[in-house]
Amino acid sequence: MERNAQPPERNAQLVVTGHLIDTGLLSRCLNLIIETGARYDMRHFEVGRKVDDFSTANFTVHAAEDRLDRIVSELVSLGCRLEGDDPVFLKPSEANTTVPDDFYSTTNHRSEVRLVTGWVPVADQRMDACLVVDSKAGTARCVKLRDIRKGDKVVCGGTGVRVHLPYKTREAQDFVFMANDVSSERRVERMVTAIAQDMKDAKAKGGRIVVVAGPVVIHTGGGTHLGNLIKHGYIQALLAGNAVAVHDVEHALYGTSLGVTLQSGIPAHEGHMNHMRAINAINKCGNLAGAVQKGVLTSGVIYECVTAKVPFVLAGSIRDDGPLPDTIMDLLEAQTKTAEQLEGADMLLILSTMLHGIGVGNMTPSWVRTVCVDIHPAVVTKLVDRGSAQAVGIVTDVGLFLRLLADELGVS
Amino acid sequence: MERNAQPPERNAQLVVTGHLIDTGLLSRCLNLIIETGARYDMRHFEVGRKVDDFSTANFTVHAAEDRLDRIVSELVSLGCRLEGDDPVFLKPSEANTTVPDDFYSTTNHRSEVRLVTGWVPVADQRMDACLVVDSKAGTARCVKLRDIRKGDKVVCGGTGVRVHLPYKTREAQDFVFMANDVSSERRVERMVTAIAQDMKDAKAKGGRIVVVAGPVVIHTGGGTHLGNLIKHGYIQALLAGNAVAVHDVEHALYGTSLGVTLQSGIPAHEGHMNHMRAINAINKCGNLAGAVQKGVLTSGVIYECVTAKVPFVLAGSIRDDGPLPDTIMDLLEAQTKTAEQLEGADMLLILSTMLHGIGVGNMTPSWVRTVCVDIHPAVVTKLVDRGSAQAVGIVTDVGLFLRLLADELGVS
Amino acid sequence: MERNAQPPERNAQLVVTGHLIDTGLLSRCLNLIIETGARYDMRHFEVGRKVDDFSTANFTVHAAEDRLDRIVSELVSLGCRLEGDDPVFLKPSEANTTVPDDFYSTTNHRSEVRLVTGWVPVADQRMDACLVVDSKAGTARCVKLRDIRKGDKVVCGGTGVRVHLPYKTREAQDFVFMANDVSSERRVERMVTAIAQDMKDAKAKGGRIVVVAGPVVIHTGGGTHLGNLIKHGYIQALLAGNAVAVHDVEHALYGTSLGVTLQSGIPAHEGHMNHMRAINAINKCGNLAGAVQKGVLTSGVIYECVTAKVPFVLAGSIRDDGPLPDTIMDLLEAQTKTAEQLEGADMLLILSTMLHGIGVGNMTPSWVRTVCVDIHPAVVTKLVDRGSAQAVGIVTDVGLFLRLLADELGVS
Amino acid sequence: MERNAQPPERNAQLVVTGHLIDTGLLSRCLNLIIETGARYDMRHFEVGRKVDDFSTANFTVHAAEDRLDRIVSELVSLGCRLEGDDPVFLKPSEANTTVPDDFYSTTNHRSEVRLVTGWVPVADQRMDACLVVDSKAGTARCVKLRDIRKGDKVVCGGTGVRVHLPYKTREAQDFVFMANDVSSERRVERMVTAIAQDMKDAKAKGGRIVVVAGPVVIHTGGGTHLGNLIKHGYIQALLAGNAVAVHDVEHALYGTSLGVTLQSGIPAHEGHMNHMRAINAINKCGNLAGAVQKGVLTSGVIYECVTAKVPFVLAGSIRDDGPLPDTIMDLLEAQTKTAEQLEGADMLLILSTMLHGIGVGNMTPSWVRTVCVDIHPAVVTKLVDRGSAQAVGIVTDVGLFLRLLADELGVS
Repeated sequence: MERNAQPPERNAQLVVTGHLIDTGLLSRCLNLIIETGARYDMRHFEVGRKVDDFSTANFTVHAAEDRLDRIVSELVSLGCRLEGDDPVFLKPSEANTTVPDDFYSTTNHRSEVRLVTGWVPVADQRMDACLVVDSKAGTARCVKLRDIRKGDKVVCGGTGVRVHLPYKTREAQDFVFMANDVSSERRVERMVTAIAQDMKDAKAKGGRIVVVAGPVVIHTGGGTHLGNLIKHGYIQALLAGNAVAVHDVEHALYGTSLGVTLQSGIPAHEGHMNHMRAINAINKCGNLAGAVQKGVLTSGVIYECVTAKVPFVLAGSIRDDGPLPDTIMDLLEAQTKTAEQLEGADMLLILSTMLHGIGVGNMTPSWVRTVCVDIHPAVVTKLVDRGSAQAVGIVTDVGLFLRLLADELGVS
Repeated sequence: MERNAQPPERNAQLVVTGHLIDTGLLSRCLNLIIETGARYDMRHFEVGRKVDDFSTANFTVHAAEDRLDRIVSELVSLGCRLEGDDPVFLKPSEANTTVPDDFYSTTNHRSEVRLVTGWVPVADQRMDACLVVDSKAGTARCVKLRDIRKGDKVVCGGTGVRVHLPYKTREAQDFVFMANDVSSERRVERMVTAIAQDMKDAKAKGGRIVVVAGPVVIHTGGGTHLGNLIKHGYIQALLAGNAVAVHDVEHALYGTSLGVTLQSGIPAHEGHMNHMRAINAINKCGNLAGAVQKGVLTSGVIYECVTAKVPFVLAGSIRDDGPLPDTIMDLLEAQTKTAEQLEGADMLLILSTMLHGIGVGNMTPSWVRTVCVDIHPAVVTKLVDRGSAQAVGIVTDVGLFLRLLADELGVS
Repeated sequence: MERNAQPPERNAQLVVTGHLIDTGLLSRCLNLIIETGARYDMRHFEVGRKVDDFSTANFTVHAAEDRLDRIVSELVSLGCRLEGDDPVFLKPSEANTTVPDDFYSTTNHRSEVRLVTGWVPVADQRMDACLVVDSKAGTARCVKLRDIRKGDKVVCGGTGVRVHLPYKTREAQDFVFMANDVSSERRVERMVTAIAQDMKDAKAKGGRIVVVAGPVVIHTGGGTHLGNLIKHGYIQALLAGNAVAVHDVEHALYGTSLGVTLQSGIPAHEGHMNHMRAINAINKCGNLAGAVQKGVLTSGVIYECVTAKVPFVLAGSIRDDGPLPDTIMDLLEAQTKTAEQLEGADMLLILSTMLHGIGVGNMTPSWVRTVCVDIHPAVVTKLVDRGSAQAVGIVTDVGLFLRLLADELGVS
Repeated sequence: MERNAQPPERNAQLVVTGHLIDTGLLSRCLNLIIETGARYDMRHFEVGRKVDDFSTANFTVHAAEDRLDRIVSELVSLGCRLEGDDPVFLKPSEANTTVPDDFYSTTNHRSEVRLVTGWVPVADQRMDACLVVDSKAGTARCVKLRDIRKGDKVVCGGTGVRVHLPYKTREAQDFVFMANDVSSERRVERMVTAIAQDMKDAKAKGGRIVVVAGPVVIHTGGGTHLGNLIKHGYIQALLAGNAVAVHDVEHALYGTSLGVTLQSGIPAHEGHMNHMRAINAINKCGNLAGAVQKGVLTSGVIYECVTAKVPFVLAGSIRDDGPLPDTIMDLLEAQTKTAEQLEGADMLLILSTMLHGIGVGNMTPSWVRTVCVDIHPAVVTKLVDRGSAQAVGIVTDVGLFLRLLADELGVS
């Protein structure tokens, strides 16, 4: 805690423009400076007179020499920009999967970099990536650290980087009303109505709605409703793990033979065997599509996907039994295939899965509308916090949520 | 719900021996029969007069012809045995990764099968596997469905299978007192004392204590304490995911440079970059061991593992950024390496990780003492339910738990 | 832990009859004996051959002299009975609100005591009361400790007491399926259907359905649905606290003036004033009924109660602002009035209130069907554990639950 | 959503001064305006150049005529002030317990009102009260609605009211770092150290530390540690309910007779009787102090209170059995006695009690340092949100927390 031998200080001039006050953005910036032990000097502040006017703040950050760059990088992530017209600072990677120490780490917000030719948009926006510039082509894109190759020109520091945080319009209120305000004491029905309208709009314009689902969807009886959404064209891709497919198949194959069990909600005592039986049945058919073709699998979420030609990606996990032949146990491949399905997504429904929800959330740009449903408030908070700025969290039973949603969409 | 066209019934004679009443075992068996729509006829019941005497129940199960086998298999899983001396019924696998429909699915309890030569123990005991018999060698072992090869002789039905549920001795009370009784309103200190004693005993006899850890261990400041346990020989293997190692390295590399931040518990604003920086730093060294050798990584959980030559397995997950070069992204390989470290384990500490906890729990025989620590009661319940019969669940902050444990062991 | 100077032991002969094994009752009894450090000797055990047959166990308990009585009392609470025909042992109270040290403390299960004339039923059954016998009249009843008067003849020890635990018939499965099995991963819809049917049956036979509600009912928008249940004769009494009425009035009075706020789910920023305004408005009318008569209060739960002449009891709490003039701040009076409304209840709905739920649960005999709804699993578990043996716990959003229930009853 | 027949608008000029941006205060004000459907016009904004400089914003609010007053009142609650020097607007109460409809409702922040003679401080600051002015004496104070008497001069609207939100100094960071940031993934130890230092400081200056405790304190074994804090002069008053005292007495009286039970954490099967026995024992002594004097009660939290002459207030609740003779079942009296103990408090520890925590929080001015400890994050959030601006929430086991705290204070 001693601070006797103060290191020499440097400073940097930044500017930030937008709805600085009502969105709390300027508070976040100034707090970041203070909490990292640096200081600021507000040089100019022009406040928007009306709600729709932008405000602009010009300020100087003073920090220890060895820390200034990182604080600036962080401020850039929040939407600030270094004053002046300096282009990005590029350094080559010295070895595969490595970058210089002061590399700029991306957010999932829409970004631009300044090349000598001017500002260009960043392609393949995702979180926690590096920015690689192709100077000849005059382009920039997000590249995952593991995909960096020796010689790639990597953006370092925050100079010449500009991040556009999504502005929550007041019109979007109905949709975003629970952003950062997860609570079980809200009116879930209202939210479902707003989400359903959004899905209708997305469908009408040929949009792309991607579902990330956990096994609780099946356990709570939500599989039927999710199947109906798929059947009626409301879902364009399903991202899940081995367990969702296994329990969906188990429900489809043994639902009636177990009689009262699945209908009644009474725990099936033979349950611990059934999921292995389900996997065995699929193994015999080659894979899930084979089971549909052979008439073995005739209902459920996966059945609807196969029938409606809605692609599904089943990513493996360390806890997977079996797994099903369709489950991708090479996670690099699973991540790639997941990312493919997320391309061009308009909306993301994360249904009771923290693991896959976080995985998918990292790959998704912040302009994709995201809905997270879970019975555990902590999970919703965690996903909404990581998710897009327009993320909506709903603390409720996912089975009920899907029933209400199917009702609203008229597909139940 | 109509039952007019009743299918023909069959019956089976079973016997179960043990502490049937005070452990609730007989209740579970009879409830299983009733809840699956079958009936029982108690033929003979000999109750132990004293607490340490075994009881024996002989009963007949009546069920629809097509369901009897499955109910019997389930009863066998619970510890019942078909009367008579019939050996197991074997059928060959018709294709790789497939077994006959009526295959017996294993539990993680100590099991035996009856061959023509008599009862033989089952090797490689784990949950949700198949039983494969080598008649010539007179041996039986658990084989995962995906490892079944065409022609393997697979045990079908419950005939000739005997499962030994662990008996919770009253002497073990101190240790098991929270089994099936997860509560935050208990005295954590008492439990830590009992666990510490157990660890001392295990160490004294050259036993094997395996830790499965989630990233919360690092976030809560438990890394230091866990590192001390490793350093002083209390841990023989560490099973974790990418995040544990990344955050541990991040703490080791940037803890002091971020100054107040990590010490104080204040969220590090630059935090979202640091984990990528940590991965980059390790990538530059080749891998984690390389970083220790080069003097880049000089403290933390992983440092202690490398220094003390305690093996660690980092299994990948779909949400992993990076990942570290040490993280195994091929899950079949990760499962295999995890299983290797579990061989011969005496004790398993599952620290704030549901994902890895379930994965590891499935691979662990029920006679391994298991301790699950998590702040979320639901996670503890889930893990203890799946875990060994001697599983202890503790609802508390894992950082505090590790501090108390290190105190008790005198290594803090 | 030393046990060198063992105190002298005594023993007692007990008998228990019923569905001892499949309900787990005998397990509970034997575990109680073991865990309190006593021992048992099973003298005779006659097991029911079929599922509907009763079993009977005769056993002897050996315990330290000074502890035997308490263990026996506890076993009697669980449904055991001392062998022989000895009548209850009565001692007089020596002072108001006090009883002899070995008094028998009641459960909420149907009980009988043996007088010299034979077994007589206990009146006013409730939990944690004393049993007072009027020998002349040949009657017995539960009396709260604070109502004991000097000279009352109080039952001491467990001799001559017989407790009838409710037997969960298999037919009642649909209703009780979540007893002791609280989970958010169940199909809430099924449960609502069963509860609605039960309410229809109760209404058809002129039964009594009592609701205990917490303020979350109003916050989640469930007030409208609860109002409809009251209006259509499904609720015969409402038990609540000050907050329920305050927020219900606030909704009724300011719902439209606040415009978007209440409809949209957006937190009302002026909210912190509105509840005080609501109380002020009621104070001006004298009380809630006055506000209805003067046309000030024209909708909501309380309005429906006043209009349909459904009695409501508002019990105060230490956190109450105001309170409303109708809120009873003398808790002894509040408990008495609450108990009056519970008399003859057929069904109890506990809606998102742990405080009032526990209070009411203690006063309610175990044969009253109880439904507990809460978003927090821990609350449901606690209430179901304390509640009647036929208690059903539902982990879900109470607003959604009430909407589904009103739908099922056709009153939405 | 149609707004065709717009009501006439009015406007008001406000000013707010302070750390407007880094504390997020201005964001809150502007959002309140927008979300209530009003508009603002920022007339002047002078930003502090450095972190310690104040900023000042002058703005005009435009709103529908009938809503402007309430929005202004709300802005005043947040710390804004109407421009100009107009004194408060006073109206007389027309009847006991009633006030004019546009009364100003208080917060728990330090407030002043402007009389013709100038600004005067408000006495008896508490939340949700009315402001009553004695013009002759030139004083103002908070009066609960139920204590308003006909003719009292009540402040109406927000004119002439000034509220001082506590400014969180950076120096106080160590203490407040979890305000509004409840998390189980923080380092509890750090927080305990800071709290202990604060308690030492308070003790050294003869300050007042008040504890509000729930029964979980006793269940988790925290009673011993809390007793030590009391014994060594760290606690000046104890606020609790009946259950805390009952379980504390039960522990003191039956802890050793039950032998292993309380020591081991194993649920005491006879437990359901013991709390009634404990009450009976106290009833026989007259009350708790009587039990200490007669040597019946010789250890525990209440014993330490009686011995150290630390006052305790036991407020009744609807769920109370018994209750103990010391428990105050008249809640108006209980609230009054609770408020008396809170007078002059420097610090408030709320230990695992939502009910009493909310009750006490409402009565406590925001400048009292408040620490809330609970294992349930939702409870901590709720209490910290309602509590003072310097409230610290800690999600952990309260028994462990008290042990760590007693360790830090050297009284364990």
